Amino acid sequence: MKKAVYPGSFDPITFGHKDIAERALKVFDELIILISTNPNKKHLFSAEERTELVKKMLDGAHDRIRICTNDQLTVSKTMELGATHIVRGLRAVTDFEYEFQMTHANRALEKRIDSVFFMTDNKYSFLSSNTVKEIAEFNGDLSNFVPDFIAEKLYKKFNQ
Amino acid sequence: MKKAVYPGSFDPITFGHKDIAERALKVFDELIILISTNPNKKHLFSAEERTELVKKMLDGAHDRIRICTNDQLTVSKTMELGATHIVRGLRAVTDFEYEFQMTHANRALEKRIDSVFFMTDNKYSFLSSNTVKEIAEFNGDLSNFVPDFIAEKLYKKFNQ
Amino acid sequence: MKKAVYPGSFDPITFGHKDIAERALKVFDELIILISTNPNKKHLFSAEERTELVKKMLDGAHDRIRICTNDQLTVSKTMELGATHIVRGLRAVTDFEYEFQMTHANRALEKRIDSVFFMTDNKYSFLSSNTVKEIAEFNGDLSNFVPDFIAEKLYKKFNQ
Amino acid sequence: MKKAVYPGSFDPITFGHKDIAERALKVFDELIILISTNPNKKHLFSAEERTELVKKMLDGAHDRIRICTNDQLTVSKTMELGATHIVRGLRAVTDFEYEFQMTHANRALEKRIDSVFFMTDNKYSFLSSNTVKEIAEFNGDLSNFVPDFIAEKLYKKFNQ
Amino acid sequence: MKKAVYPGSFDPITFGHKDIAERALKVFDELIILISTNPNKKHLFSAEERTELVKKMLDGAHDRIRICTNDQLTVSKTMELGATHIVRGLRAVTDFEYEFQMTHANRALEKRIDSVFFMTDNKYSFLSSNTVKEIAEFNGDLSNFVPDFIAEKLYKKFNQ
Amino acid sequence: MKKAVYPGSFDPITFGHKDIAERALKVFDELIILISTNPNKKHLFSAEERTELVKKMLDGAHDRIRICTNDQLTVSKTMELGATHIVRGLRAVTDFEYEFQMTHANRALEKRIDSVFFMTDNKYSFLSSNTVKEIAEFNGDLSNFVPDFIAEKLYKKFNQ
Repeated sequence: MKKAVYPGSFDPITFGHKDIAERALKVFDELIILISTNPNKKHLFSAEERTELVKKMLDGAHDRIRICTNDQLTVSKTMELGATHIVRGLRAVTDFEYEFQMTHANRALEKRIDSVFFMTDNKYSFLSSNTVKEIAEFNGDLSNFVPDFIAEKLYKKFNQ
Repeated sequence: MKKAVYPGSFDPITFGHKDIAERALKVFDELIILISTNPNKKHLFSAEERTELVKKMLDGAHDRIRICTNDQLTVSKTMELGATHIVRGLRAVTDFEYEFQMTHANRALEKRIDSVFFMTDNKYSFLSSNTVKEIAEFNGDLSNFVPDFIAEKLYKKFNQ
Repeated sequence: MKKAVYPGSFDPITFGHKDIAERALKVFDELIILISTNPNKKHLFSAEERTELVKKMLDGAHDRIRICTNDQLTVSKTMELGATHIVRGLRAVTDFEYEFQMTHANRALEKRIDSVFFMTDNKYSFLSSNTVKEIAEFNGDLSNFVPDFIAEKLYKKFNQ
Repeated sequence: MKKAVYPGSFDPITFGHKDIAERALKVFDELIILISTNPNKKHLFSAEERTELVKKMLDGAHDRIRICTNDQLTVSKTMELGATHIVRGLRAVTDFEYEFQMTHANRALEKRIDSVFFMTDNKYSFLSSNTVKEIAEFNGDLSNFVPDFIAEKLYKKFNQ
Repeated sequence: MKKAVYPGSFDPITFGHKDIAERALKVFDELIILISTNPNKKHLFSAEERTELVKKMLDGAHDRIRICTNDQLTVSKTMELGATHIVRGLRAVTDFEYEFQMTHANRALEKRIDSVFFMTDNKYSFLSSNTVKEIAEFNGDLSNFVPDFIAEKLYKKFNQ
Repeated sequence: MKKAVYPGSFDPITFGHKDIAERALKVFDELIILISTNPNKKHLFSAEERTELVKKMLDGAHDRIRICTNDQLTVSKTMELGATHIVRGLRAVTDFEYEFQMTHANRALEKRIDSVFFMTDNKYSFLSSNTVKEIAEFNGDLSNFVPDFIAEKLYKKFNQ
């Protein structure tokens, strides 16, 4: 059984993340969404909120998806969970450079873990959690980027 | 009559911005400099100061330029002002990727607004407001980057 | 009246080119499609065929479009036609670098001509005349890339 | 059973290709090396020679690898072989842009086929069949790039 | 006698920096490591600590290396020290763009100073002080990136 | 004495090459222009003509420059000439990627040779021998790119 992790902040999860997760499920038997909980990084949503949103967006649809928070190095958690691969989405050149650095750092740390990349659908090639938050901040229309229940949470955050 | 906006922080305006504005005026009948006033972003100069500097640098020279602050999404403000295009300058690859993301996000939000790009003159291809601020912080020579009245304001900010 | 040229090989014209031409027509009053006829470059279609295909694809729809072949430097032809701007589409980083070089070379040759860039629609961001020819060579489906009358010409070329 | 193709010219196969094939075999149950035989492209080695070299380099080691020549569109051949994924190696930015275009073109042609990417080992990040041929042309040392039996074939080709 | 500076934060120095310094020493007679002490930037280690770590890592091995802190513009300090060149390492595209901007800004400020670039060894092409800090934060293995005495200091910082 | 080679086709030499050579002479005591004579590559000018043009452009000005043709691997010739470094100019991202591949391939072939990079002056950042040839083909103005005696040779070649 092939098991992979899909690590990220998911602050919040978008249709772009969902697209990558669904592609990954065609290759791997089990996919574990790994939500980073680094206390030194600022997130808009708490780890609990982010987990809740990922669960609501992905969990029902796929019984081969698990969701998990992570306060370790990605490779250490991947080993601990018995997975062998790290899944990442690629959108653009700056993504690519960052992923290149992460992949090689991960290999230096743990040779038994490899990374696989999927290319985000054209429709989502401009989409990031940051873009979504910038639009939410100005009450812009989010219907192409996240489902309604996430859009509402976003508007609420910025109107507090 | 063709009307475009040129959005940015302009913190502060540089000769590079002026170059792009002048190129844009050869294509559009009216250009509105849109100074973003996002209260969540840190600026060196206040929105009032930035407006004043842009005005002093551009306004006299071109009666087809207007200056405006903006606390909405760029596309919403563009619609509200009756403009049809967003003008942006391109300098380098990282610029390009960012602009690519912004352009596609803007199109997803509002199909009636398009973006046009001009390439900064060779002389200014390394120039950004951040570079200018870094040099000002160390009292470096700014004469190639901004006019004297802006250089003085910058030195004052960092020597307070 | 603002007049621009849109230079290229158009070997053959695709939906991506059409998208850029339509964006350009929202900014310029007249757009001249400039089909290069460099005898040292190998084309699949002759200059006459390429002109015919562009005409059939664009001409009917827009009375503000003209079509013209060009055997000079782009900037020289642009001056000769009384146009002031060169229109180009941007898709990716390698495009950007090439366009950067061309734009600066053109400026060194003729300061009175400037270039403006439009970003291709997401749908066409992968699309080039070369891709179209590669697919045609294997009798692949071209319906997302070119209209039927061009697809037929392409299949015929490769089955001769 | 998860089946993927790994398409390319393999003119000739290098240690970099082998590295990607081995990574892919950890994810897929069967990997089909797809050697393109486009008669319009110039290759140093014939399709038969390239197949022979790939076979000698990969076949013994892995009973889950098959080797196949291809004179169709990659996606058509992938469908015909009952595979669901296309495997590609990524080395650098220009690779990335090319792969981005190919992936999206392939999706437009056939939605049922997806692409997955592996990042070449650091050691091979500079390595391509073209580099190998350039070095062979000058009788340079190839021991870090290809096995001896391929180096010999290369020297022979250039000393004919 | 050819004298160059190698400026940076060195927060902390890594094997990648050491690699560049050693390459530079084959070209220049004297190399001055210039540790920036900008009080507006947040560093993990103080200027004194960073100097101490650089000294311990480089100083013994090479009597042609000097270490110096810098609270001025890099070009001003370079002039003051009687050096003529700025040494920089290149790893990736985003590095390249940043270095391109810095180099041209430096030239605009001081024409007598030029920059030379060395390409980091493959082994370190993914390595940055930030990567090292991210790994240290999770008590990951640092033996491929920094010497033991720096790894210990890093773990201590994050476990305070 | 520090000795470097500056390899290339120089088909023909431009002001951009001269700029790099002059920068390199501030770092190295002797610079050998290495003109590649690969018989499998098509050049506009013969090796003899290219050598003549380089000599006329550079030789008089600098007694520390030598000119040499090369029909071997760059690293082999560099060793044979007793030089230790390869000088290269960097202009843009696609340059960077190519240089990255070449540098790492050269290191794999010969560890004793390193590469150093200089960044072309802003004025020449768009300039390549190919651009010059494209402009010459259409009798365009070359005065910003090459000296008159080279411009004349170029026009002659294309009007034969």
